[in-house]
Amino acid sequence: MARAWSLKSRPAGLPGPEHFELVDIADAPLADGEVRVRNSWLSVDPYMRGRMNDVKSYVPPFNLNEPLGGGAVGVVEESRAEGFAPGDRVLHMLGWRDVATGPAKEFTKLPAGGAPDQLFLGLLGMPGMTAYFGLLSVAEAKAGETVFVSAAAGAVGSAVVQIAKLKGMTVVGSAGGADKCALVRDLGADAAIDYKAEGSLISKLNAAAPQGIDVYFDNVGGDHLDAALALARDNARFAMCGMIESYNSLEPLSLRYAMRIVGARLRLQGFIVMDFFHRMAEFHAEMGGWAAAGKLKSPETVRDGLEATPDAFRALFSGGNTGKMLVRL
Amino acid sequence: MARAWSLKSRPAGLPGPEHFELVDIADAPLADGEVRVRNSWLSVDPYMRGRMNDVKSYVPPFNLNEPLGGGAVGVVEESRAEGFAPGDRVLHMLGWRDVATGPAKEFTKLPAGGAPDQLFLGLLGMPGMTAYFGLLSVAEAKAGETVFVSAAAGAVGSAVVQIAKLKGMTVVGSAGGADKCALVRDLGADAAIDYKAEGSLISKLNAAAPQGIDVYFDNVGGDHLDAALALARDNARFAMCGMIESYNSLEPLSLRYAMRIVGARLRLQGFIVMDFFHRMAEFHAEMGGWAAAGKLKSPETVRDGLEATPDAFRALFSGGNTGKMLVRL
Repeated sequence: MARAWSLKSRPAGLPGPEHFELVDIADAPLADGEVRVRNSWLSVDPYMRGRMNDVKSYVPPFNLNEPLGGGAVGVVEESRAEGFAPGDRVLHMLGWRDVATGPAKEFTKLPAGGAPDQLFLGLLGMPGMTAYFGLLSVAEAKAGETVFVSAAAGAVGSAVVQIAKLKGMTVVGSAGGADKCALVRDLGADAAIDYKAEGSLISKLNAAAPQGIDVYFDNVGGDHLDAALALARDNARFAMCGMIESYNSLEPLSLRYAMRIVGARLRLQGFIVMDFFHRMAEFHAEMGGWAAAGKLKSPETVRDGLEATPDAFRALFSGGNTGKMLVRL
Repeated sequence: MARAWSLKSRPAGLPGPEHFELVDIADAPLADGEVRVRNSWLSVDPYMRGRMNDVKSYVPPFNLNEPLGGGAVGVVEESRAEGFAPGDRVLHMLGWRDVATGPAKEFTKLPAGGAPDQLFLGLLGMPGMTAYFGLLSVAEAKAGETVFVSAAAGAVGSAVVQIAKLKGMTVVGSAGGADKCALVRDLGADAAIDYKAEGSLISKLNAAAPQGIDVYFDNVGGDHLDAALALARDNARFAMCGMIESYNSLEPLSLRYAMRIVGARLRLQGFIVMDFFHRMAEFHAEMGGWAAAGKLKSPETVRDGLEATPDAFRALFSGGNTGKMLVRL
């Protein structure tokens, strides 16, 4: 018997335990071409919140009363598909479950090379790719420029900090609390801003980047976006990756410095990492190289057991994770 | 004796008569290399509002108790500069005054060719260039696409509507009131939205562009920007030209659909027409060609007399103009 989390009802605001249900799935013999995988790590990611709404977006909404999709890595237990054998380590998007069964095309074998499996859900997976292409392609950040990144202790933000430093940029990261700020500095940031500390975000950012910022990598929206607008230099570029403050909010976004978009000729560019999947080889070459050379740190917050998954997901929205949030099975 | 409007104090919010003063300027004999011009038309433009604040921007703030700069056309009365002779028609930026005196480099001779002089303050001047480069270069609007433009009966907006139609686009324009909407349709727009009429802007835009919009040319900000965010198609581009609703407002901009920047991969690009001055020849060739061929309409609202200038300026912020707002001397 396999077990999986399904969406029981659609949340308005922050999802609670009542929106999820752990359901049993009867084992069935494998059909021809299918693979059965025992998951070892599950990913919880902020973008999943959007799929819980019944709104057309870049990924279709989750269906009610069906297992939730999402990134996971595991080990092949049984295979009736060519190219897969028991013991193979694989990545897939079949989500929050202990055992995943499906046609071979749903699974990607992890490369050999010594990187821990869960890195393919973080630094070497979707969050890492989001950071890499968002910073370098969407925002076109260049050596010598000053980059501001919000949620800099998160899965994407911590990758942005490190990539920016490896590329010769000055980096200011924001995070909530002294511990997270210490991590951000440890990742190489030139300055870390504690948004929970006394004082306005604008004055803190101004102190950290007195010449202003050339690039803003936005994971947060809200006041962070407004502070970045206030302190953007002429022709600054904003990679708009997510607005975690708005995911569960019914309030409109309020911006006091929106007029600077015009006066400072700012560019705000939204993006979705899927748009860069065709350039995945480029990412794996450079980022994999850095990882193999020991140049990357991979902070993680780990929760144990399938039962912990919805809670781990909820915690993303209250800063409960440092680095990549993972569920270990 | 010449007369000029100067800025007496800096307005907070909408400027009133008390912020301006009409001052006398003693006649002085021309120095070598100088030209004296009797103005025939003065321009009032929304961007001037920004220069009344004591804030660093892409153009320096106006100084207090000095004549206000701004676009004007006139006729040379007296010249001690090579290349200028009495009777020459010229364009300059010396602003709200009846007679302008200065070194020859401040003046540009208008081309021969039959276009009325005041067109060089509108369709063939800065507003026209703003429309042309904003639509075609900043937003990269292409034939077959759907363009939404706010303040479509204004100086810039009315040019956007016409350029978009000449380039084979579908155009929706918004304006306040039935008369302005009739004008917008008369300029060629496929649909006109009366933002003052009953109903939400989003539902009106949705009715006018049921497939969504590819380009938004923003002159307004506020609810118009939010409606454009709500109805933007994937990869839509926004040319952020001005936010007239915010120029006199102390309220933050409130957006309910900002999250769509991420999900629909929108690009919001601020711009300043000055950045395109090096491409002026391109503009004059194409726009001048259309004008000479009778393909462009140039709606105008004219106020008479130097005394009327501050009122004409104020009226820009309450929809008091249809087409280009001008002061005729």
